[in-house]
Amino acid sequence: MTNTTRPIEPDLDLSQSMFRELEAHTRVGRGIVRDSYGAGENFAHQLAERTARGLGLEIATDAARNLYMTLPGRRRELPRFVTGSHMDSVPQGGNYDGAAGVVAGLAAVAGLKSLRITPQRDVTVMAIRGEEAAWFNSSYIGSHAAFGRLAAAAFDVPRSDSWRTLADHMAESGCDVVALRRGEACLEPDDIAAFIEVHIEQGPVLEQADLPVGVVTGIRGCLRHAGARCFGAYGHSGATPRRIRQDAVAATAELVHRLGEACIEIENAGGDLVFTVGQFNTDPAVAAPSKVAGETRFVLDFRGLEEAVMRNAGRTAARLADEIGARHRVRFDLGEELYSYAAVMDPALRRGLSALAADLAIPSMELASGAGHDAAVFATLGVPTGMIFIRNSNGSHNPDEAMDIGDFGLAARLLASHFARDGA
Amino acid sequence: MTNTTRPIEPDLDLSQSMFRELEAHTRVGRGIVRDSYGAGENFAHQLAERTARGLGLEIATDAARNLYMTLPGRRRELPRFVTGSHMDSVPQGGNYDGAAGVVAGLAAVAGLKSLRITPQRDVTVMAIRGEEAAWFNSSYIGSHAAFGRLAAAAFDVPRSDSWRTLADHMAESGCDVVALRRGEACLEPDDIAAFIEVHIEQGPVLEQADLPVGVVTGIRGCLRHAGARCFGAYGHSGATPRRIRQDAVAATAELVHRLGEACIEIENAGGDLVFTVGQFNTDPAVAAPSKVAGETRFVLDFRGLEEAVMRNAGRTAARLADEIGARHRVRFDLGEELYSYAAVMDPALRRGLSALAADLAIPSMELASGAGHDAAVFATLGVPTGMIFIRNSNGSHNPDEAMDIGDFGLAARLLASHFARDGA
Repeated sequence: MTNTTRPIEPDLDLSQSMFRELEAHTRVGRGIVRDSYGAGENFAHQLAERTARGLGLEIATDAARNLYMTLPGRRRELPRFVTGSHMDSVPQGGNYDGAAGVVAGLAAVAGLKSLRITPQRDVTVMAIRGEEAAWFNSSYIGSHAAFGRLAAAAFDVPRSDSWRTLADHMAESGCDVVALRRGEACLEPDDIAAFIEVHIEQGPVLEQADLPVGVVTGIRGCLRHAGARCFGAYGHSGATPRRIRQDAVAATAELVHRLGEACIEIENAGGDLVFTVGQFNTDPAVAAPSKVAGETRFVLDFRGLEEAVMRNAGRTAARLADEIGARHRVRFDLGEELYSYAAVMDPALRRGLSALAADLAIPSMELASGAGHDAAVFATLGVPTGMIFIRNSNGSHNPDEAMDIGDFGLAARLLASHFARDGA
Repeated sequence: MTNTTRPIEPDLDLSQSMFRELEAHTRVGRGIVRDSYGAGENFAHQLAERTARGLGLEIATDAARNLYMTLPGRRRELPRFVTGSHMDSVPQGGNYDGAAGVVAGLAAVAGLKSLRITPQRDVTVMAIRGEEAAWFNSSYIGSHAAFGRLAAAAFDVPRSDSWRTLADHMAESGCDVVALRRGEACLEPDDIAAFIEVHIEQGPVLEQADLPVGVVTGIRGCLRHAGARCFGAYGHSGATPRRIRQDAVAATAELVHRLGEACIEIENAGGDLVFTVGQFNTDPAVAAPSKVAGETRFVLDFRGLEEAVMRNAGRTAARLADEIGARHRVRFDLGEELYSYAAVMDPALRRGLSALAADLAIPSMELASGAGHDAAVFATLGVPTGMIFIRNSNGSHNPDEAMDIGDFGLAARLLASHFARDGA
C-alpha cells in the first residue's frame, strides 16, 4: 500500500518557486515585509493556498484566516498530524523565518504524493497568522486564535505601523472577528496526534557544528526586566571624589559583569541558561563625558528551558542589585518582570525524529530553541510537539538570513518520512 | 599707614546688588545664559565696569575686551596682584560660576577702600572673557588672548548656537581682532606677582566637609577617550550560546568594572585620580532587548594632578581592553586620546592662603580642583597662582547652583586680607 523504503524527495522545485515568488512580492528595499494581517502576509497565504490547490489538497480556513491544507490519510478518524509555521515576518526581515516551515510542509506532502504514499493519518499543513510580536506587540495571534484562546485585550492593540487595531486589520483580511471574540476554536488539542514545526535556526549553533538539521529539545522561556534602571546622582567627573559618588554607570557595569559571572556558574552547574544585556544606556539629554552618570537604563534577559533556573538567576540579580546599590549609594529599580513559559518538546517525538534522521543518514543534533515559536502554543496546550531546525547563517529577523536549499530539503525529507512511517 | 589688624569686611551689599542685577538681565527661562562674546557676557562686563567706576578704580581693556579694574598700590613699580575670573556661563548655567570671582575681587577692593587700606602692590580685578568651552569648543579664550596666545585656528570656530565665528563675535563685541591675530599681549607673566582666582566649588567636597572655603592644591588634568567603542556581533539573545557570543555590552561592562577597581588601587597607593565613564550606550537603532549587543560607545575620563598617574591608568585601560576583548571575541577601539595638562598651584601661595585663613578663623581645607579654570593658564605660564573655592550646593553649570553669601564673604575677606598683608 505505501512504500517507505524509497527515500522521499520533497519537491524542491516547488519550494524554490515559492521562495522566489514570496521574495518578489514582499521585498521592500533591502528586507522582507510580510505584515501580520496586512498585504504581505495576505499575499503569502494566497500563494500557499494556490500551491495547495495545485497539489490537490483539501483547503480550509478558520475565523482568524489561518489556512489548513490537508492531505487525507488512510484512516481519517485518527487524530491528524499538523505541520506548519507562520508566514508573517518582522519589518525588514528575511525570506525564510516562518515561511520555510509552510513551504517545507507543502514540499513534504508533494514528495509523498509523487511516490503515491498515503500516510495513515491526515497530514495538515497549517499556514499560521500573526506570529511576530513586532506588529501587534504580542506573539502567536494565529495559533492562539486557532484554539479559541486569543485574549480579549489583543483585539484593541494598534499595529505598530498603521496605528489601526488588530480587530480592524483582521476584519479587512476576511476574519470573523465576532467568532474570534466568542472564543470559537477550530483546533482541539485531542484531535492532533502531533504538531511538527520546521523553522530556520535563529542562532548559529548548527552552522558552528557544521550540521544541516537540528531536532529541538525545547523552546526556552524568558524572564525579562526590560525597563531596569539605576538612579544615582550627576556630578562633575573631576570634582566629585569617588568616595561620595553615586555613579550609575559604575554600579550598573558591576551588576552586569558580576551577574554574568553568576550565570556562568549556574550554567556550569548544568542549568540551561543564557543571560543577555542587549541595551545599556545613559541619558542622551543629560549624560556627558565630564559628568558622573546619574542614571542608566538597561535590560536583563534570562532564557532557559526550566523556570527554576531562570528564577534562580532572577533572584541573584535582585540580591546583587541590593548589595551593589548600597555600596555605590545608588538605587536599582529592576522594574516590571515579563515571564514567558518554556515549552518542552515531546520526548518521544524528539527521540523519534533524531532516530529517523540517523536512519536517513541526515546529520543532525539536538538543541534548544532560544527564540519563541508557534510550537510553544501547541506544546503548552498538551499537543505532542516537535520542531526541526534548518541551519541558517546570519541569524533571523534580518535581510541576511541565508538558508541553503539542500539543508531545507533534508529537513523536509525528515518531516515527510516521519509522516510516511507512522503506522507503516 | 595701613591697618591690617581690623578685619576687612568685603562689601556684601555691593556684591548682592551685582548678583541680583546679573540674574535679572541674564536669566533665560530657568537658567542663566551669559554667552561668550555675546549679549549675556557683554552685559556682565558692562556691569563690572560700571561698578568699578563707582569704586574709583582705574579701568582698562585689552584687544580681547578683557576688563582690568585696578586699585593702585603704594609701590606701583612692583609686579601687581591680579584676581578675577570669567563672566560667561554655559547655556542654562547658574549665576555664580565665574561671576563670583569678579564680584569677590570688587567686594574685596571695596572693603580695602572702606578701611582706607592701600596695598603695597596694585590690585587688578580682571573680568575675563570666554572661559566656557560650551560656546566656541575651547576653554580660556580670554586668558589666552590676554597673554597673546590665542591659537590662530580659534578665530574661525563657529559658536555652537549662532554658527558665526569667534572672530565675528569678537569684532561685534569691540575687540581688535587684527591685534589678537598678531598675538599682541596685554599681560606679561613677569609683571604679575600672583594671580588668585575665587570660584565656587564645582563638586560637593566643601559641602560634605561642612567648610565654607577651600584652598586649591592644583587643577586636575584630564586624559580622555571620548569616542571609545567596542565592536562585537549582534545575535539572538536566546539562540546564541554564550561560548560563541561576541557580546559588546558584557565586554564593556567588564572593562568599566575592572578598570574602576584598578583605579581604586592606584588611588589607594596615593595617586590623585578619579575615573569616570559618564556615557555608555548601545546603538538605539539596532540594539534590542532580545539581541546580544554588537556595539557599544562609551567614554573613559581620567583626571588627576599628575600626568604619570593618569598615563598609568590609561595604560591599564589599554591592557585590560586587550585582555577582555580577546576573551569576549570583541574588538575595543579606545579612539583618540585628549590630554589637558594639570596645573599645580604655587605651593608658597597655597600655604600662605591656608595659614591666613587659619589666622582669620575662616574654616578651610585644601582640595584639588577637578574642573578647569582660567587659573590653569596663568599657572602654566609661570605666574604664581592660587585659587580660593567657595562652598556650593548642587554642582555648577546648572540653574541650581547654590552659594551662600556668608561663605562668599569669607572667601572675599581672605582675598582682601592677602592683598592687605603683603608688604605690611
